[in-house]
Amino acid sequence: MSYFRIEYFSNALCRQTSFDVLIPNDRGIDSSGFYPTDTMHTLFLLHGYTGKAGNWVPEDVVQKYRIAIVMPNAENSFYLNGLSSGHAYQTMVGEELVDYVRKTFHLARCREDTFIAGMSMGGFGALHTGLAYPETFGKIAALSSALIVHDIAHMKPSDNPVVANYDYYRECFGDLETVESRETNPEVQIQLLKARGGIIPDIFMCCGTEDFLLESNRSMHEFLLKEQIEHTYYENSGNHDMAFWSEYIVKAVEWMFGKA
Amino acid sequence: MSYFRIEYFSNALCRQTSFDVLIPNDRGIDSSGFYPTDTMHTLFLLHGYTGKAGNWVPEDVVQKYRIAIVMPNAENSFYLNGLSSGHAYQTMVGEELVDYVRKTFHLARCREDTFIAGMSMGGFGALHTGLAYPETFGKIAALSSALIVHDIAHMKPSDNPVVANYDYYRECFGDLETVESRETNPEVQIQLLKARGGIIPDIFMCCGTEDFLLESNRSMHEFLLKEQIEHTYYENSGNHDMAFWSEYIVKAVEWMFGKA
Amino acid sequence: MSYFRIEYFSNALCRQTSFDVLIPNDRGIDSSGFYPTDTMHTLFLLHGYTGKAGNWVPEDVVQKYRIAIVMPNAENSFYLNGLSSGHAYQTMVGEELVDYVRKTFHLARCREDTFIAGMSMGGFGALHTGLAYPETFGKIAALSSALIVHDIAHMKPSDNPVVANYDYYRECFGDLETVESRETNPEVQIQLLKARGGIIPDIFMCCGTEDFLLESNRSMHEFLLKEQIEHTYYENSGNHDMAFWSEYIVKAVEWMFGKA
Amino acid sequence: MSYFRIEYFSNALCRQTSFDVLIPNDRGIDSSGFYPTDTMHTLFLLHGYTGKAGNWVPEDVVQKYRIAIVMPNAENSFYLNGLSSGHAYQTMVGEELVDYVRKTFHLARCREDTFIAGMSMGGFGALHTGLAYPETFGKIAALSSALIVHDIAHMKPSDNPVVANYDYYRECFGDLETVESRETNPEVQIQLLKARGGIIPDIFMCCGTEDFLLESNRSMHEFLLKEQIEHTYYENSGNHDMAFWSEYIVKAVEWMFGKA
Repeated sequence: MSYFRIEYFSNALCRQTSFDVLIPNDRGIDSSGFYPTDTMHTLFLLHGYTGKAGNWVPEDVVQKYRIAIVMPNAENSFYLNGLSSGHAYQTMVGEELVDYVRKTFHLARCREDTFIAGMSMGGFGALHTGLAYPETFGKIAALSSALIVHDIAHMKPSDNPVVANYDYYRECFGDLETVESRETNPEVQIQLLKARGGIIPDIFMCCGTEDFLLESNRSMHEFLLKEQIEHTYYENSGNHDMAFWSEYIVKAVEWMFGKA
Repeated sequence: MSYFRIEYFSNALCRQTSFDVLIPNDRGIDSSGFYPTDTMHTLFLLHGYTGKAGNWVPEDVVQKYRIAIVMPNAENSFYLNGLSSGHAYQTMVGEELVDYVRKTFHLARCREDTFIAGMSMGGFGALHTGLAYPETFGKIAALSSALIVHDIAHMKPSDNPVVANYDYYRECFGDLETVESRETNPEVQIQLLKARGGIIPDIFMCCGTEDFLLESNRSMHEFLLKEQIEHTYYENSGNHDMAFWSEYIVKAVEWMFGKA
Repeated sequence: MSYFRIEYFSNALCRQTSFDVLIPNDRGIDSSGFYPTDTMHTLFLLHGYTGKAGNWVPEDVVQKYRIAIVMPNAENSFYLNGLSSGHAYQTMVGEELVDYVRKTFHLARCREDTFIAGMSMGGFGALHTGLAYPETFGKIAALSSALIVHDIAHMKPSDNPVVANYDYYRECFGDLETVESRETNPEVQIQLLKARGGIIPDIFMCCGTEDFLLESNRSMHEFLLKEQIEHTYYENSGNHDMAFWSEYIVKAVEWMFGKA
Repeated sequence: MSYFRIEYFSNALCRQTSFDVLIPNDRGIDSSGFYPTDTMHTLFLLHGYTGKAGNWVPEDVVQKYRIAIVMPNAENSFYLNGLSSGHAYQTMVGEELVDYVRKTFHLARCREDTFIAGMSMGGFGALHTGLAYPETFGKIAALSSALIVHDIAHMKPSDNPVVANYDYYRECFGDLETVESRETNPEVQIQLLKARGGIIPDIFMCCGTEDFLLESNRSMHEFLLKEQIEHTYYENSGNHDMAFWSEYIVKAVEWMFGKA
C-alpha cells in the first residue's frame, strides 16, 4: 500500500494544509507493476475531535477491498463552513478535495464509487457532508456520531460547556438559536432533500451502548425511521473508543462494498 | 542539519498538531559525532498568513550561526488567543512550545538564548508574542509586519474587507471595538510593560518601501521613538515578498547574534 | 505521544537519511505541560526485511510504560557493517544514533535505560547490535529472529537462494566462507564476550512454532543453554507475522520493564 | 504547488521506500479548482551523492513551466542496477517509478512529455537512465555529472580511493575490469543505440570550470562530438555547488521546455 502525505494550498481554508491518501496500488514482493487508481472505489475517512489525518488508518480493509482512502485534516471544525473566512471545512472536504483527487488521481469519479465515513466528530461530518453533497457521495457510514446540534442549540455566551466554549460552537455552527432549523442539522438536510425529491445517500449508523453519545444516535435513528429513510443501524455493547471503531469500520466497509 | 517534523498533542489547540525544528547538530561527511543541543541559541520563526511551518527555512543562517530554529504551525491565527476554545495560538507558541523544546531538546532555556522572528502575519506574531512573554524572549525581529490593529478597529459585521471577513478578525482579535486598547495591540503591550517597569525585549523591525504595510510599520517605528524604546528599524527598497525577507532575515539574525 | 520524523546526515551511511522517534512526553487534553525526556527509558526498535521505521509502532506499550522508542531505517542491511563504504548500519544504530539521541534528547544515557528489540531481520539486528555494544544496551529482545548465518555460510556465487542473491549476502555479511567464525555470528559474539569476561546484555528470545525460522531460533536457544547464558525463551503457537509480534512485543516489554 | 511524499513498496528495491513529487496543480488564493495532471510534462529529478529526494527542489521552474517533478530516493547507488538483490535502482527510476506515476497520476505518458535531469551523481544518473530507456525519456539534462567510469576502471581491492572503497564501486557498477565496455558506461550506451539505429534522447550537459569533474565532462562532450550526437554543452565559471546548479537548472529547463 502507498501512503501519500500531500501538502497543498487550500482555497477553502485560505492557506497551505495537508491531507493523507492511502492507495493499495502496489502489490508487494511478488509483483512487478502498479495498479491504476482508476478502478478503485474511494472512501473519504474523517477523523474525530482532537484528531488528525492518519491517526486512524484501517489498513486491513483498504487491502482487503482494494479501495483508496482519502483522509482530510479538519482540525476541530465539525466539517462545517464556520463563520470566519478560511473556515470552509465543508467545502474543503465535499468540493475541494473531491475535485483534487478526481483531477490528480482519477479517483472518486462519481457517487457510485465515492463514499464517506467517520467516527465521533467525523461521524457527524460523514453524515453532514454526505447529505450536503448527495450527488457526490453514494454511501455514508457514521460511527458513534457526535450529533450535538440539539445539545448546543440555544447555548448562551455565559454558558460554560465542558468540552468547548460558546464561541467555539458559534464559530463552527453559526447562530446557535437557529442551529436546529438550518442545514447544520442533518435532520433538516434530510427533510430538504425529501422535499425537493433529491437523492439521499445510503446511510449506515452505529453506536456503542456505553457511549455517551448513545441517546443522540438513537434519536437520529428514530428520526430516520419516522421519515421512512431506509438505513442500517447497529447498536451494540461498546464505548466511545478505538475498540468499537476498529470493529465497526469493518462492518461499515462490508456494508459499503459487500463481502470481500 | 537535522530537520524534525514533530506531531504532538497540543493542549493549547486541544488537538493533535505538528511543528518543525531545524537543528545544526550534524556535521556532515567529515565528522563522526553529533553536537549537543545545549549549547545552541534558539530562534522561534513564525510563518505568514496562508503559510505553514517549513515554507520559509533560512538554512544558511542556521548553518552559519549554529542556531536551532523552531517553526510552529499557527494557521491564519495571527498568533493570538482567539475567542474559541482550542484557538490559543499565543499560548501554544509562547508557553507550550517553549516548554516543549526546553524539556525535550534542552533548547531555549532562558531569554538570553531564546529569540523570536517572523514575517508579515508572523512579524506581528513575533512582536506580540515577544512582548507578551518578555521574560522568555530576549530579542524580537519583525519583518514587514502585519500591524493591522488600527485597520480592523471598529469594523462592523456588515463590512466587507478584502482579505478576510469580520467574523475572522473578531475570532482572532476579540471585540473589534476595544482591539486598540487591549493587549492585542503591541503599543498597549509596550505601554503596560513600561508602566510596570518590566523588561522589554530588544526589537528589530524592517519593511520594504513598496510594501502595502509600510505605513503601519512606520507608525509603529514612530510609536517606539515616541515611547523612547530603543530599537533597530530598517526601511529599504523592497516589496512584501520572499526576496525582501531572504535579505532581511540575514540582517535580523546578524543583529541578533552578531557577525558570524 | 509525540511522533518525530528526523532527517539528518548520517556519517555511517555517508548520506542523508531519516529515523523516527516516539516519545510519550505529552499528556493529552487534561494536562498543561510536557514531560522531560530525561526520566524515560529508551527502546531501539528494529524493523524487518523489506520494512522501514514506523511500519511497526507498538503505541500501547510506549504509553503504558512511558518509554521512548527510536526506530532506525536500515533498509535490507541486517544491521551489519557491510563491505561497501556507507553501508555501516551496525555503526549507525549502535553508535551514531545512540550518540544522537543522547546529545539531542538526553535519552539513552546508559545501559540501564537503553534496550534494543526487533523482529525477523530486526530480531537478528537486536541480538547482533546488542552483543556488539554490551556496554550500551542492557537488554535485548529478539522476536522470530532471522538467525541465518549457518544457512548462508559457504554459499557460492552460482547458488540461487530464494530470498536474495549471493552478492546481497556477501555485501551484508562479508566473506561467506568465514561468516560463522566471525562476529557476524551472534554465537561468536557470545563466546568472545565470555572469553574476555565482558558483560552480556539480558536476552529475551521467542519464536512461533509455525515460523519457518523456528529451527534456527531453537538452535540459538540451545547454544545459549550450552554456554550457560541466562536468557528467557518462549516458543508458542504462531507464525512469522504481525499477530505473533503484536502479542510478543508486549511480553518482551514486560520482561524488560516489569509489570506496568 | 502540491508536495507529495509517497511511501510505497518498491519491487525493484525489495522494500518499502519513498519518493517525492511536486505538482503545480493548485492555483493559490485567487482560484477555486485544481489543474488536472494530464496536461503536464514530467521531469524526473535525480539527487546527488549523499543526497535525497527533496533536498534540491527548483520550485521556481516548476511554477513557471507548470511541470511536475518526480524525485526518487536512490541513496548512493549511482542509479544503477547493482550486484546485490534489491539494488535495482536503474529499474526503480526508469521502469517502476515511470509506471507508478503513469498509473497513479497519469503523468509521464510518453517520451515527448517525460524528461530526466540531475546533478553530480544524479547527472550521471540522468544520462545513464535516459540512455537506458530512450523510448521513455525524450530529453536528458546532466549537470556537473559524475562521469567516473574511466576513473574507477581497473580499481583493485587493495586501492584506497578517497570517496568510497572498492567494494562500493563494485557493488554499484559491477566488475570494474569491464566497467568501461559495458552499458554502465554512457559511451557504450550511445554506441549501442547508434549501432541498432535506436532513438537517442536530446542531451544537455554543463559543468563549471572550477569543478573537479570538468575533465570527465569535457571528455564526454568530445565523445559526443566525435560520435556526431547533437547535444548542448555549456562550460562556464562555477564550482561543484548549489550556486552553479541553481543557475543551470533554469537553463536546462528552458532548453527542455522553451522560453516560458
